[in-house]
Amino acid sequence: MAGDTISFARGAPSADILPHEQVREAASRALASDWETALSYGVGIGHPGLCRWVAERHGHLDADQVMITNGSLEAGAMLFGHLLGPGDRVVVEQPTYDRTLLLLQQLGVELVPVRLEADGLDVGQLEAALSEGPVKLAHVIANAHNPAGCTLSTEKRHRLVELAAEHDFWIFEDDPYRELPFEGEPLQTMLSLDEGGKVVHASSFSKTVSPGVRVGYLAGPAEEIGKLAKKANETYISPNMLAESIVLELCRSGELDRNIEFVKGELKARCDALVAALREQLPEAEFVVPDGGYFLWLDLAEGTDTPALLAEAKSEGVSFVAGPDFMIEGGGNSLRLSFAPVPADRAAEGVSRIAGALERMRSGSPA
Amino acid sequence: MAGDTISFARGAPSADILPHEQVREAASRALASDWETALSYGVGIGHPGLCRWVAERHGHLDADQVMITNGSLEAGAMLFGHLLGPGDRVVVEQPTYDRTLLLLQQLGVELVPVRLEADGLDVGQLEAALSEGPVKLAHVIANAHNPAGCTLSTEKRHRLVELAAEHDFWIFEDDPYRELPFEGEPLQTMLSLDEGGKVVHASSFSKTVSPGVRVGYLAGPAEEIGKLAKKANETYISPNMLAESIVLELCRSGELDRNIEFVKGELKARCDALVAALREQLPEAEFVVPDGGYFLWLDLAEGTDTPALLAEAKSEGVSFVAGPDFMIEGGGNSLRLSFAPVPADRAAEGVSRIAGALERMRSGSPA
Repeated sequence: MAGDTISFARGAPSADILPHEQVREAASRALASDWETALSYGVGIGHPGLCRWVAERHGHLDADQVMITNGSLEAGAMLFGHLLGPGDRVVVEQPTYDRTLLLLQQLGVELVPVRLEADGLDVGQLEAALSEGPVKLAHVIANAHNPAGCTLSTEKRHRLVELAAEHDFWIFEDDPYRELPFEGEPLQTMLSLDEGGKVVHASSFSKTVSPGVRVGYLAGPAEEIGKLAKKANETYISPNMLAESIVLELCRSGELDRNIEFVKGELKARCDALVAALREQLPEAEFVVPDGGYFLWLDLAEGTDTPALLAEAKSEGVSFVAGPDFMIEGGGNSLRLSFAPVPADRAAEGVSRIAGALERMRSGSPA
Repeated sequence: MAGDTISFARGAPSADILPHEQVREAASRALASDWETALSYGVGIGHPGLCRWVAERHGHLDADQVMITNGSLEAGAMLFGHLLGPGDRVVVEQPTYDRTLLLLQQLGVELVPVRLEADGLDVGQLEAALSEGPVKLAHVIANAHNPAGCTLSTEKRHRLVELAAEHDFWIFEDDPYRELPFEGEPLQTMLSLDEGGKVVHASSFSKTVSPGVRVGYLAGPAEEIGKLAKKANETYISPNMLAESIVLELCRSGELDRNIEFVKGELKARCDALVAALREQLPEAEFVVPDGGYFLWLDLAEGTDTPALLAEAKSEGVSFVAGPDFMIEGGGNSLRLSFAPVPADRAAEGVSRIAGALERMRSGSPA
C-alpha cells in the first residue's frame, strides 16, 4: 500500500477546510450576548432567532414555517415517522442517499424506485408510478445529489410541484448542498414554488459551517411544522441551543457567507482535479460532472463488481462506497466518490490506485 | 396579580445560576485544542473523550459501556424503542416524570403502576406486580425524584437489582439528579451493583452544566450500548460533537465540580426557603423534604382539585404543575413545585399566592 489511505468514502470535508477559528470567535460572541438562550432549554423549534434567520434567507417564509433540528438526517427521520405508515408507497430516487433509504426500509413502506437523469429525477417514470397507484411521499435530493452529483432542473422542479398538487403526495426536498453550486446562484427551491402546501424542505449547516455542529432544519407548511415541533419537543425537549446560538452568530456576522465562498472554491478545485484524473486514468468511467456539492457517481463497464473492487482498492490504499449501498437493487458496476475529503493534489494518486485495483481485479491477480 | 409571575412549573434553573462565563471560556479552549473532533462528524457514541471521562467518573465502567446522547430524554426514548414492543409490561413509578410517561404511552406498552414511598419505589408492590406476570422493564428515577423529591434507599437499590436478575427484567435507572444531593456523596448507582447486565443508566449535564448544551448519556452492558449506538448513528449520525467537546473541557478543567458545588448550594437554599414557607403558610400540605435535585411533591387535603387550583393560581401570578400530569390516574389533590427556577427570596411570596388561590377556590369566590 502506497502511503496513507486516500478516502473518497465519506461525505465529509477534510479538517483543513473547517472554519475552526471563525467558530471559536463566534462561540465567544454568542456566549457573551446570547448565553441565556444558548444555555437554557428551548422548545421543539429550537433557537427562535435562527428560525427567523432561515426564514429570511429563503425569502418567502414566515418564521413559524421553520424548525431547527439536530442535523437534517434526524429531521427526515421525524418527517418520515410523522407522515408515513407501513405499506405507504414512497418514491425514492435511484441511486439515493443510503441513510434515508435505510430509514425508509425500517419503516416498512413500499419503495417505488425512480431513476435519475443528468438533470435529476426521471419525471416520466414518476408519472408512470403515479398511474399505478397513490404515492404518499417522494424523496428528492434537489441539488448536487448525494450520491449522483446531478442537480434537478428548474423545469422539473415546476413539474414535480404540479404533480404533487395534482396527485396529493408530499415532496421531501432534501437539500443540504443547495448553497454549494460551483457557479452562479442556487436554483429556486420546490418549497418556494409550492402553492399547495405539499413540500417540506430540509437543509443543514453541516456543509456550510461544519458537520460537528449538527444543526439542520425543516421548512414547510406551518401546520405540519407545528406538529413536527411538538413531536420534537416530546422526544428531546429542544435541539442543541448552544450550537444553534453559535451558528446564528456566524450567520449574522457574515462569516457564513464568507465560508461558503471559501468552501465552494475548495470543493470546485477538488472536483476539477478528480474529473481530470478520471478522464485521464479511467476513461471507461461514465459520470455526470457535478455542478456543486461533494459527490461524483461513476458507472464502470457492465459486469464490473464494485463491492469486489472496493476490497481490492482498500489493499491499494484507497476507498469509496460501492454502488449497491445506494440502490434498492443493482448498482454493482457503479460507485460513489466523495471529493470533499480529498485535497486536489491527492486526487490523481487516488484515482491511480482505483485504476490499479481495477486492472488487478480484471487480470485475475488480486493483491 | 401581584408583580411578575413566580413559576414553580418548569424543571429548569433560573438564568442567574447558569455558568455562562465558564462555558464561554471552555468553548474557547475546546475550539483551540479539540476543534477537529468538535467540528467533524462523529459516530453514534458521540465524543470518545467524553465517553472515557464518564466511564472514569462512574469508576467501574469501560468506555465501551457509555454513549453520549443529545440529552437524556431522547436517550430514554431510544432505549424504550430498542427494548420494548406493544403489550410489554413496563413498571412506572407513581408519580413519575411526565415526559417519559408520554413516551411509554405512545409505544403502546402496558403500564404497571408502582407507588413511591419516602425512600423510593414500594418494593412489595413491585413484587406483587412481578407475581402477576413477566415485566420487561422498570423505569426508576433513583435520586431526588422528578416529581416526587424522594431518593431510593441503598437497601432498595440492592433489592431491585436482585429482582431484575431473578425475574429477568431491565431496569432503566434514570438519574439526572444524582450529582445534586444537598448533603454527602451520591448513593451507589444500581448500575454499579448490577452483575447480571440488566441495568441501563441515563444521566445528563443539563443540571450540572446547563440544559441548552443538550448533552446526556447512557451507560450499561457494552453489547446493548453497541446496538443503541448503531441505532443512534442511523438516526442522527452523531450527537452534538461541539457541545460535547465544550462539556468535556468543563469536566477536565475542574469547572464542572466547582459548578456542582455552587449549584447545590443555590438549590438547597431555594429548597429550604420553599419548605419553610410551605410549613408556615400551607400547613395542610404533606410532602417528603427533598434531599437534592429540583422538585417537591405536595399532597393537599383529599378532594382538592389541583388542576382547578392551577387555573386560580395563574390569576394570582404563580404557577406549578398539577399532579395528574405525572399519574396514570389520580393525582388530583397533588402538585409538583420546582424550586430550581425560584430564587430563595421569592419562595415565600410564591407560596403565599398559592395559599391565597387555595383559599379563594375553597371559599367559592374565585378571582
